[in-house]
Amino acid sequence: MTETADLTATEALAAIRAGRLTAATYAEACLDRIAAREPEINAFAWFDPAQARHAAAAARPGPLAGMPIGVKDVLETADLPTQHGSPAWSGYRPRSDAACVAAARAAGAFVMGKTVTTEFATRHPGPTANPANPAHTPGGSSSGSAAGVGAGFFPIAFGTQTAGSIVRPAAFCGVVGFKPSYGTLHRAGMKVMSESLDTIGVMARSLADCALAMSAMSGLDFGAPDAKVPRAPRLALVMGPSADQAAPETVALMERAAEACRRAGATVTPVTLPGVFAEAYAAHPYVMNMESAEALGWELAHARAQISEVLRERMDWGRAQPVSKLIDGRAAFAAARAAFPAAIEGFDAVLCPSAPGEAPKGLAWTGDPAFNTLWTLLHGPCVTVPAGRGPNGLPLGVQLAGRIGDDAAVLSWAAWVKAALG
Amino acid sequence: MTETADLTATEALAAIRAGRLTAATYAEACLDRIAAREPEINAFAWFDPAQARHAAAAARPGPLAGMPIGVKDVLETADLPTQHGSPAWSGYRPRSDAACVAAARAAGAFVMGKTVTTEFATRHPGPTANPANPAHTPGGSSSGSAAGVGAGFFPIAFGTQTAGSIVRPAAFCGVVGFKPSYGTLHRAGMKVMSESLDTIGVMARSLADCALAMSAMSGLDFGAPDAKVPRAPRLALVMGPSADQAAPETVALMERAAEACRRAGATVTPVTLPGVFAEAYAAHPYVMNMESAEALGWELAHARAQISEVLRERMDWGRAQPVSKLIDGRAAFAAARAAFPAAIEGFDAVLCPSAPGEAPKGLAWTGDPAFNTLWTLLHGPCVTVPAGRGPNGLPLGVQLAGRIGDDAAVLSWAAWVKAALG
Repeated sequence: MTETADLTATEALAAIRAGRLTAATYAEACLDRIAAREPEINAFAWFDPAQARHAAAAARPGPLAGMPIGVKDVLETADLPTQHGSPAWSGYRPRSDAACVAAARAAGAFVMGKTVTTEFATRHPGPTANPANPAHTPGGSSSGSAAGVGAGFFPIAFGTQTAGSIVRPAAFCGVVGFKPSYGTLHRAGMKVMSESLDTIGVMARSLADCALAMSAMSGLDFGAPDAKVPRAPRLALVMGPSADQAAPETVALMERAAEACRRAGATVTPVTLPGVFAEAYAAHPYVMNMESAEALGWELAHARAQISEVLRERMDWGRAQPVSKLIDGRAAFAAARAAFPAAIEGFDAVLCPSAPGEAPKGLAWTGDPAFNTLWTLLHGPCVTVPAGRGPNGLPLGVQLAGRIGDDAAVLSWAAWVKAALG
Repeated sequence: MTETADLTATEALAAIRAGRLTAATYAEACLDRIAAREPEINAFAWFDPAQARHAAAAARPGPLAGMPIGVKDVLETADLPTQHGSPAWSGYRPRSDAACVAAARAAGAFVMGKTVTTEFATRHPGPTANPANPAHTPGGSSSGSAAGVGAGFFPIAFGTQTAGSIVRPAAFCGVVGFKPSYGTLHRAGMKVMSESLDTIGVMARSLADCALAMSAMSGLDFGAPDAKVPRAPRLALVMGPSADQAAPETVALMERAAEACRRAGATVTPVTLPGVFAEAYAAHPYVMNMESAEALGWELAHARAQISEVLRERMDWGRAQPVSKLIDGRAAFAAARAAFPAAIEGFDAVLCPSAPGEAPKGLAWTGDPAFNTLWTLLHGPCVTVPAGRGPNGLPLGVQLAGRIGDDAAVLSWAAWVKAALG
């Protein structure tokens, strides 16, 4: 039987409606799980059980009534510190909630705690460990959100993605990670790094929870991913410009996933994207780092010693590039976005890897976003679903991606693929 | 002879280089002007002469070395309060500078003070008066920046535009207001309301100063607007979807401007935009208010009593709209943007009104952005230049607008038009 802390929000809310559970019992089960596992997981940048209980008791009615959420620590919270994973922001207390946090609270959720982010959601890691095996990274930058969802600390958490910061850690931790279409959740109160790329999304233990949370916060309809669909999908199998970075377990996984989908009735067609996509992919580091260096103007001028060496190097690199690289990079993104509908014409969605392989060993490196940056810059929805384990017993995921605005369809086809994988 | 405080930054820097002026003397002249006129103008939300002198003395070398700037109070400053024109943010002290403020300081500018914004850069006005006639509004939302530039408090100031918040107040105060292409200056540390629309720009007393400041802060080349151009422009005269809101002085001004440009060798061709532009124009209030209501989620939940009645009404209206209005509105914007290059094919730039007429009397209403919203949502550059006076002796402006990325060209053609107007 599923332990209470491992119920999804959708399951917990159904049990509450049926009188079999109370929101308080569910919250206490999550708190017990935190007490048991947080010492080895370190998912939280800020967690105070008394404050969490107070917030739980004060939760409003709504579609997420009484559900605990983890909030990545690049999102401002009026009642908890917001530290951006950086000593330069140690102890910072914003006045207000980020727009997405306010939307979650308005929908009834309460904030369980602030979750560890890599430094400014870039590369330098925090202390979080992978709940599937604490000797391995949970991925990043949304490290604590992925790990906390995986460990049963909260059913839903916020992540943000500039390169692969939602999908990769979700895959590494064996949970669902959903990056909606760019611009779906307002970024007010987020520590925005790359205006062209940064997208707020959610992690959860089910696709239904992702849809529930996104619908509740945005007012848009993200559908019912688990509802039966009238037909099997036409899927484009895309290894993309980083195909050669797939580990053997990922190559095998994609073959297995394609075969399982075909057996369940889908057409799965390998698609090689035209060169415009490789050009956009190659431009990603320029746009990301050059825009981030602008965003961190104050930190680089006034808190340089508190910035990690790896980030200082990247920011200095970004500043040293000719500005034409930024302009050309944005143009390459736009060209790829314009070409995408034609590139996958006739297909319902793209099936692709979520990450190069299993979570790397150690906590020093959160892994490579090579299979994420293209889908981030294309601005469409993408989601990873758990898909078995790799050679080290760590979780693997497969990713579904789609056209801008096809969010509900991508969630639905992801549920179909997950069912086909068994 | 021009008083020292009325020198443009370009003029002051040239005088400094020539040994005829020092940065300190220029700053003191601005401080003297503030002492003389601030009591009736109320341009500042925060001003401390000792702190300004300290900042002036500490200014770095660079293209704006020692130049005072006014910073609209929706932009965060690490050393000065940032209050967003709202009692809900009274006394708020951010930890860092907004990215654009950091860029200005890195280029050598110093912050003279924080300038009055309407409430969250929306409608409810602050106390600022028009320097041309303090019985009239300076316009808004960048009220203090426009008035301060007009009064000689600083040569350059930041504005932000969601509807008409740079161009309209600049026109009302008889200064230059430049909204660059969307996304040119990073919005990190800005109180962003509408992610689809909000654009940071500058106000100054010359086009050259706008180009100087924008080039210095962005690293892009905004050209030398006053340099001689090889030929006269081909201008599209566009009254646009709000044509019927032009006051008689504006109808007369546009006729006069068109005639002056033709006399100077330009072709000026009246252009009626196709319906897709009127549709985008009609969608503007939906996108602006619905996105702003998301951005103000915390304020509406926790500081509702501190929000003005007019803003509460607008936000409640935005929240009451079906979310399809937001999605359709963004699509209408995208359709108009896609149609714009063809709509002005063969033209160098658009000539259009900056505002319906002169600044309205009184300080209760900052005027109508009817002639600004289309150019904001099109994401291209637009700039207002002073163009004489209206029936009440108040400044008028004419606006030049262009395609995304044509920023330097628009500034250059604006200089040409200004010269033609005489």
